[in-house]
Amino acid sequence: MISELFSPSVQHTLDIVGIFVFAISGALAAVRKNYDVFGMAVLAEVTALGGGIFRDLMIGAVPPAAFSDLGYFSTPLFATVLVFFLHPEVERINTTVNVFDAAGLGLFCVAGTVKAHDYGLGLVPSAALGLATAAGGGVLRDLLANEVPSLLRWDRDLYAVPAMVGSIMAALLIKFDALTGFTSGAAVVSAFVLRLCAMYFGWRAPRAWHRRSRATSEEEAQQAM
Amino acid sequence: MISELFSPSVQHTLDIVGIFVFAISGALAAVRKNYDVFGMAVLAEVTALGGGIFRDLMIGAVPPAAFSDLGYFSTPLFATVLVFFLHPEVERINTTVNVFDAAGLGLFCVAGTVKAHDYGLGLVPSAALGLATAAGGGVLRDLLANEVPSLLRWDRDLYAVPAMVGSIMAALLIKFDALTGFTSGAAVVSAFVLRLCAMYFGWRAPRAWHRRSRATSEEEAQQAM
Amino acid sequence: MISELFSPSVQHTLDIVGIFVFAISGALAAVRKNYDVFGMAVLAEVTALGGGIFRDLMIGAVPPAAFSDLGYFSTPLFATVLVFFLHPEVERINTTVNVFDAAGLGLFCVAGTVKAHDYGLGLVPSAALGLATAAGGGVLRDLLANEVPSLLRWDRDLYAVPAMVGSIMAALLIKFDALTGFTSGAAVVSAFVLRLCAMYFGWRAPRAWHRRSRATSEEEAQQAM
Repeated sequence: MISELFSPSVQHTLDIVGIFVFAISGALAAVRKNYDVFGMAVLAEVTALGGGIFRDLMIGAVPPAAFSDLGYFSTPLFATVLVFFLHPEVERINTTVNVFDAAGLGLFCVAGTVKAHDYGLGLVPSAALGLATAAGGGVLRDLLANEVPSLLRWDRDLYAVPAMVGSIMAALLIKFDALTGFTSGAAVVSAFVLRLCAMYFGWRAPRAWHRRSRATSEEEAQQAM
Repeated sequence: MISELFSPSVQHTLDIVGIFVFAISGALAAVRKNYDVFGMAVLAEVTALGGGIFRDLMIGAVPPAAFSDLGYFSTPLFATVLVFFLHPEVERINTTVNVFDAAGLGLFCVAGTVKAHDYGLGLVPSAALGLATAAGGGVLRDLLANEVPSLLRWDRDLYAVPAMVGSIMAALLIKFDALTGFTSGAAVVSAFVLRLCAMYFGWRAPRAWHRRSRATSEEEAQQAM
Repeated sequence: MISELFSPSVQHTLDIVGIFVFAISGALAAVRKNYDVFGMAVLAEVTALGGGIFRDLMIGAVPPAAFSDLGYFSTPLFATVLVFFLHPEVERINTTVNVFDAAGLGLFCVAGTVKAHDYGLGLVPSAALGLATAAGGGVLRDLLANEVPSLLRWDRDLYAVPAMVGSIMAALLIKFDALTGFTSGAAVVSAFVLRLCAMYFGWRAPRAWHRRSRATSEEEAQQAM
């Protein structure tokens, strides 16, 4: 079966690590919004599992894996307890958290793409759902925190592009029948390293081409600025 | 069949009452946001049916019950008409509305847990979906009103905990094969009474443990305050 | 088969046109929020396909058509590129965009109603899902832009009512077994013309009946104003 990239226990351990780190980011967002412990648990669950649940709904894999594996469900609760008692310490190792988050991003975009293709979707929609698996939880977290999704903001380091690269690599590997534990690991690492670079060098995506509008209609562009 | 807690007609009547009260809270939220009559109807429908639709999507019960029973769908429209003409009067009996809302909370968390288990989910995810059935509509209402979900806010009386207690009681009753009309009614009443107490005594859930952070790093805590 | 309103190629072309115009409105919203090019693509996809995906999830048509037809998925990306380079020009022909948007609204409310009925839903829920198909994408766009959904706001021209009229006409045509390419085209045109009139004449929906409240309790009404 194509989806067995790694041995099941390795895959499961990696999933749990990714879920744990995403959950930490959700619980921290709740602390910053001054939510209570229950709001922390909700944001941790949604951030960690939301992307995968969205993908599973789209491909008809119900009930979603998040509800059938108790480890997936309870990991965010454990992250909540940790942040509840230790949030200043967790904030202080924010860089470390971000590195693990980048690892989760790489892992989930590849795993999401492969799972969507396993359920019969084409390569392009599979890659799109891989991206949604990796980035969807963060969007739902920001919606529940009543904030503009940081994924969409111009003034944040690239997050979607690394996930897109990983998803597209996974889709190409499937297309050329070259998906193995090794090659899919390379796709994971590519997305991971790209995200680290984006954070380190402050890479950003361009906004709509203002310059052209300035050339064409000076006033309108100034008004827009 | 395990899901027949009460006679079908009693169950249906209780459902309609719960939907009606949730819809009132949705329509009132729309009035406070200065939405038009159509926005009132949308918020009424979403608040009343959103939690159940979410649960049904997760367990694969499509189309959701909200779309197959005309009574479920039309009750929020009736609530909208009522609030449209009588909203100051409805606001004035806000305490009464809150008491009925607490009853709906108790009813839906138990019924949601039982339905999820009927569809083959484990006890823990069933209880989680019971909670989502009861509280999910209110979260969607607040998202559509572009407000921080009151479920997650620290400065609101406990809402999720009573629903959690009801859901967990229902799951335990299933586990010990003790689910009857009487025992499930007891779970409903427990959640109901807990929610009433939370409102009456102003119970709140704790936020992340600020005190510890103050002890460890004085500055950081002050900055956070 | 009842859903073949027009010849498949005509239907598909109309779908693509509607998706394209909805995507333009999503990409423009992203430009106004100062999102980057990736945020533009996400908002374009969500605005154009969100309503149809919601309907397909509800009726159990997974994976949604948006994921199985590459034309549906790639059209919003093309709209994103266009807005990226030409957004001042696109803003300038805003009226034209709105006219096409009205056409998309008419088309999608009728097509959504018919598809929901094809999947076995009753006439009332089918009409509700037709409305959701046409208007749901715009609501998701506004949620992702962290704004109050313009569908629900009082101070915007009627948007939902034209879609409701089209949906209800389609449901009545199904009920009386009179659904043909011609009659369903008439339903599309009715919704389209109604929306154009709403824009031209500035039609709005009423808010909750303030006058009555003023009569009953003068103070409360003044406070509300």
